[in-house]
Amino acid sequence: MSAQDKASASVSSSVVDCPVIDLRHSPFASLTPVSITNVKLEDNFWRPRIDLNRTVTIPSQLQHCKDTGRIENFLRAAGRSDAAFQGIFFNDSDVYKWAEAAAFSLATHPDPALDAELDAVIEIIGAAQQPDGYLNTYFMFERESERYTNLKDMHEIYCAGHLIQAAVAHHRATGKTTFLNIACRLADHLYLLFGPGQRVGACGHEEAEMALVELYRETRVRDYLELANCMVDARGGTPPMFGNSAYHQDHLPFIKQTELVGHAVRHLYYVCGATDVASELPLKECRAALDSLWSDLTLRKMYVTGGAGSRYEGEAFGAAYELPNDRAYTETCAAIASVMWNWRLLNMTGESRYADLMEHTLYNAVLPGVSLDATRYYYQNPLSDGGSHRRKEWFGCACCPPNVARLLASLTGYFYSTASSGLYVHLYGANSARIAYGSGHIDIQQKTEYPWNGEIVIEAALTGIAKTEIHLRIPDWAIEPVITIDGETILIDENSCGSYFAVPITDGKPVEITLALPMPVECIVSHTRVVSNSGKIALKRGPLIYCVEQADFATETADIRDLFLPDDADLETEFRDDLLGGLCVITGEALASPPTSVALYSRYQPDEMVFLSPVPLTAIPYYAWANREAGPMQVWIPTLPALVYSEEDEDDEE
Amino acid sequence: MSAQDKASASVSSSVVDCPVIDLRHSPFASLTPVSITNVKLEDNFWRPRIDLNRTVTIPSQLQHCKDTGRIENFLRAAGRSDAAFQGIFFNDSDVYKWAEAAAFSLATHPDPALDAELDAVIEIIGAAQQPDGYLNTYFMFERESERYTNLKDMHEIYCAGHLIQAAVAHHRATGKTTFLNIACRLADHLYLLFGPGQRVGACGHEEAEMALVELYRETRVRDYLELANCMVDARGGTPPMFGNSAYHQDHLPFIKQTELVGHAVRHLYYVCGATDVASELPLKECRAALDSLWSDLTLRKMYVTGGAGSRYEGEAFGAAYELPNDRAYTETCAAIASVMWNWRLLNMTGESRYADLMEHTLYNAVLPGVSLDATRYYYQNPLSDGGSHRRKEWFGCACCPPNVARLLASLTGYFYSTASSGLYVHLYGANSARIAYGSGHIDIQQKTEYPWNGEIVIEAALTGIAKTEIHLRIPDWAIEPVITIDGETILIDENSCGSYFAVPITDGKPVEITLALPMPVECIVSHTRVVSNSGKIALKRGPLIYCVEQADFATETADIRDLFLPDDADLETEFRDDLLGGLCVITGEALASPPTSVALYSRYQPDEMVFLSPVPLTAIPYYAWANREAGPMQVWIPTLPALVYSEEDEDDEE
Repeated sequence: MSAQDKASASVSSSVVDCPVIDLRHSPFASLTPVSITNVKLEDNFWRPRIDLNRTVTIPSQLQHCKDTGRIENFLRAAGRSDAAFQGIFFNDSDVYKWAEAAAFSLATHPDPALDAELDAVIEIIGAAQQPDGYLNTYFMFERESERYTNLKDMHEIYCAGHLIQAAVAHHRATGKTTFLNIACRLADHLYLLFGPGQRVGACGHEEAEMALVELYRETRVRDYLELANCMVDARGGTPPMFGNSAYHQDHLPFIKQTELVGHAVRHLYYVCGATDVASELPLKECRAALDSLWSDLTLRKMYVTGGAGSRYEGEAFGAAYELPNDRAYTETCAAIASVMWNWRLLNMTGESRYADLMEHTLYNAVLPGVSLDATRYYYQNPLSDGGSHRRKEWFGCACCPPNVARLLASLTGYFYSTASSGLYVHLYGANSARIAYGSGHIDIQQKTEYPWNGEIVIEAALTGIAKTEIHLRIPDWAIEPVITIDGETILIDENSCGSYFAVPITDGKPVEITLALPMPVECIVSHTRVVSNSGKIALKRGPLIYCVEQADFATETADIRDLFLPDDADLETEFRDDLLGGLCVITGEALASPPTSVALYSRYQPDEMVFLSPVPLTAIPYYAWANREAGPMQVWIPTLPALVYSEEDEDDEE
Repeated sequence: MSAQDKASASVSSSVVDCPVIDLRHSPFASLTPVSITNVKLEDNFWRPRIDLNRTVTIPSQLQHCKDTGRIENFLRAAGRSDAAFQGIFFNDSDVYKWAEAAAFSLATHPDPALDAELDAVIEIIGAAQQPDGYLNTYFMFERESERYTNLKDMHEIYCAGHLIQAAVAHHRATGKTTFLNIACRLADHLYLLFGPGQRVGACGHEEAEMALVELYRETRVRDYLELANCMVDARGGTPPMFGNSAYHQDHLPFIKQTELVGHAVRHLYYVCGATDVASELPLKECRAALDSLWSDLTLRKMYVTGGAGSRYEGEAFGAAYELPNDRAYTETCAAIASVMWNWRLLNMTGESRYADLMEHTLYNAVLPGVSLDATRYYYQNPLSDGGSHRRKEWFGCACCPPNVARLLASLTGYFYSTASSGLYVHLYGANSARIAYGSGHIDIQQKTEYPWNGEIVIEAALTGIAKTEIHLRIPDWAIEPVITIDGETILIDENSCGSYFAVPITDGKPVEITLALPMPVECIVSHTRVVSNSGKIALKRGPLIYCVEQADFATETADIRDLFLPDDADLETEFRDDLLGGLCVITGEALASPPTSVALYSRYQPDEMVFLSPVPLTAIPYYAWANREAGPMQVWIPTLPALVYSEEDEDDEE
């Protein structure tokens, strides 16, 4: 069967079904994500962001790709331009990620102009493809002989992976096979080289693993799954592929890996690919490794924002508890990769802890990566800053901007999944959806001001099937949540926070559910080994982590780095329409220490009291920082720890 | 005058005069260091270390140089070996630093075997020198055409600088001109290329600047000073030499520089060179820049140990107050460079603040770089560690080990300087010295257990000149010091701490001075902007910074990372002969928090008291860490800050 046949075979009609990952036929997955086209957002949080992503981000990123020679590189490879290769050798991937964003955007918001622009880009990409399926604009002409000679560093297969993901998205979003045909030809070419029984090889930068599984799901061509499985297994072998380099996750075979190490985005893309493979094949050891790695992330290597990869050197995971705030690398792409991974784990297992972390990471680690006006981006996301770290319009290594764009363009796909046991509600936000279910469908509508208010009213109706259940995620952070079903109130006990709460529903009998998630201001403390945070608290409300930013404090009143938050502080919240697109601030009273002396080190004088002055406190959600005038910001605020001496107790024990 | 003539001209006799830097003829220097040969150490701190340096370190490092092809690279360049170049392109410099260490060692401890070994190495180095004076074993044969094509990265002139410094040391130590002739030929060659009116160029890694000034001082050939001055001026020019790279200190002309930036060792070597030039030429702006840069180091970019260069990325200075403890890069070479710079500033200005920092850095930032048995080295010197960072016998990039060796071999040269106003005593430690002074000499003897005890008995006698003064450094850390001169006691007021105290002395009338520097245990706090240290104290006694190391605590009692030190802790000291070569420990009672829960983040419960258990505390000098079983270590210990609320006060003001 030719690649074109393969691609065509999967398209039965022009009905577009466009899930973010397609688990309909995955034997080892518990849930099936619903199509992004089934959900219409009606909220004031995500919808405006997705609109800006479509109207501002996607067009401006295409322009950046054009301005920086990224498109021209394809024209050159196609023999239509005499220009030299421009930029970095992996720049093709940015075009692919842009195309993926554009494709997902078309799925939820038809736009003939964008459709035509995307078609034009796909035509150029296709023209650059070689007769044998090879496609990488860097390794053309004078560098043709270098193809696949340096898998470790040169990102060839990584670029191929992004092409494949974009092509799958395009096919799902538009039903067109143009891009998918290119992807199949490229994947067939890779299969011949790196498939079962061929050269043991994978890319130094993982990505293609998950793309190939998705291409298998789209085309049902099992070769692609086998190739992905080979690539997952290629690392940590004997002889080692990349000298056992932990940076490249080549230090151990996947199933022996228990710690997230090396380049953060690479390892997180790797676990995405491994999760995808484990959703298709019976890989018990692989699932155990995934569980260990997730524990390593959440118990030892994650910022309170959900961000990961703390080290600048090697864009890497640090050691356990190595989570500096000012020099946090915390790449936006790593946060996106974590969302992608948690999404995959969630659907593979049906466990809500993954949905909790996915939501948390979306709000607190992905969103800070893009400015409120959707034109500028962070690569690194520090948790404290003196005011010099600002978002940029583009980067030489521009992985993060189109990564944000493709995630936002597909965000509605992360709200719901289905299973034989019913409908799973992962994310909250005003929306209405009609979701195919069995031989019938479920209509569901959420009315809520979430994330500003934890009251969520859900109306659901089942049609065409006798009965099922609606499973509502009760977040792990929920405090005394209350659920009301058709007027009957149920207190949810503490042990049910961090799981799905099942509400039965029967055909022809709509149900109205009100989930009330109280959102008091919470103070968060770190494990004592996180030395960066000792004696400090972070403010959180609902799913949002807060920060203090100098723009909310008159400089003559206090430098926000001199603030202390007493542990008995009375903290209130207030919704401010006028502020940063509308958001809920936390207010209260902090204490400011007097300006410090100039000395770097001085003798401690315990009898020398430091008098602290009260200062009105305003904290804003961390995602909104650095959208006003530059100034210091910090998430972690010093407090006075609740510690008491207890020598008597000790004496008693002796 | 030929190079050989130049070198020979400076040697009037076999009398060896071997100062670390020779300022006898420097018009803009206040002090003149005494020869390392004039001081005989009789103490139990430095003398055993210098002996081990001679008997263990220097022989083992030559062996490492042989084992790693560093010596063979010279044989290859000389046409005596067919081996390929081995190791890193700047490896010649390690051989030169070893030669410098060996030369200085010969000055204070004649050793015919080492002398012969050094002669043999010098012979090989000479054989590798090209007819035009060029000498770099990497840029030979197939790479000959690449010489000086990449000054930024390839360390050619840096290696030349180390050769020159070694050759000057060898000449001063032995009176032999063999190595100095090689150095002069190489410097003459550099002068033709980069001297006044020639190509504007300097090395991406500074070092040659100070070496050339020293070669000028040794030979009185002014070309070398001019060349050094050209190289200091080459940076930050128009057009820029290295693209205005701050990493290479090419962002600004030297005289405009106010902040230490980029690669720490490079910038610190650069300021050494600039200080050397400013001691010879009337460079007012250069001196002003040096002052600004020293303030930047001491007020914003220095660890409490004196270590500098906090960032792993680029082995660089961090931003102001960016001083993480666990990921402190704090290269041993940067500490050595700081000692070298402070030594130069001290002698240029006569200001004791530089001697204070030099001593502090020696004890607390250089010494940790080498194991107590003198066989293993640290490249990075973190201020807290989980137990995995251990010293190594050698490195691929082996700059630190021979740097430690050359400093220790010449350490006696840092004790004294002379000036028209008398003799300056910089360092304390039992020793006796006869120092040429004017037409006569000064005999001086120190009896002391310093740094364990702050009582220093000094006997001094002046011969052959009517009268002068002995200037004793009163350290900036001194607390109520007392000086007794021939039985008469003088209380030194607080304002005189951090300066030299002058004691008159006349010919034929020896003087006995007792300087008593009380050494209570001090608790040190950081500037509030050093977020790594907020709520923490460091222990210090006399010139030594202390740390706590797990080896002194039963693991079942407490993990040292769970300790708190109450601000009213009663801290004692005890000399322990048996411990780590004999040292003074700090003892007292700390409090240990209970084992933390496993969660990385949790809700803060202000009403949930944490009971702390008392634990016997032992702290050891930081220099001695990691010489026992591996385990956690930290310098900064959490305490309960002396902060009080003061809302009333604020109300009064309103």
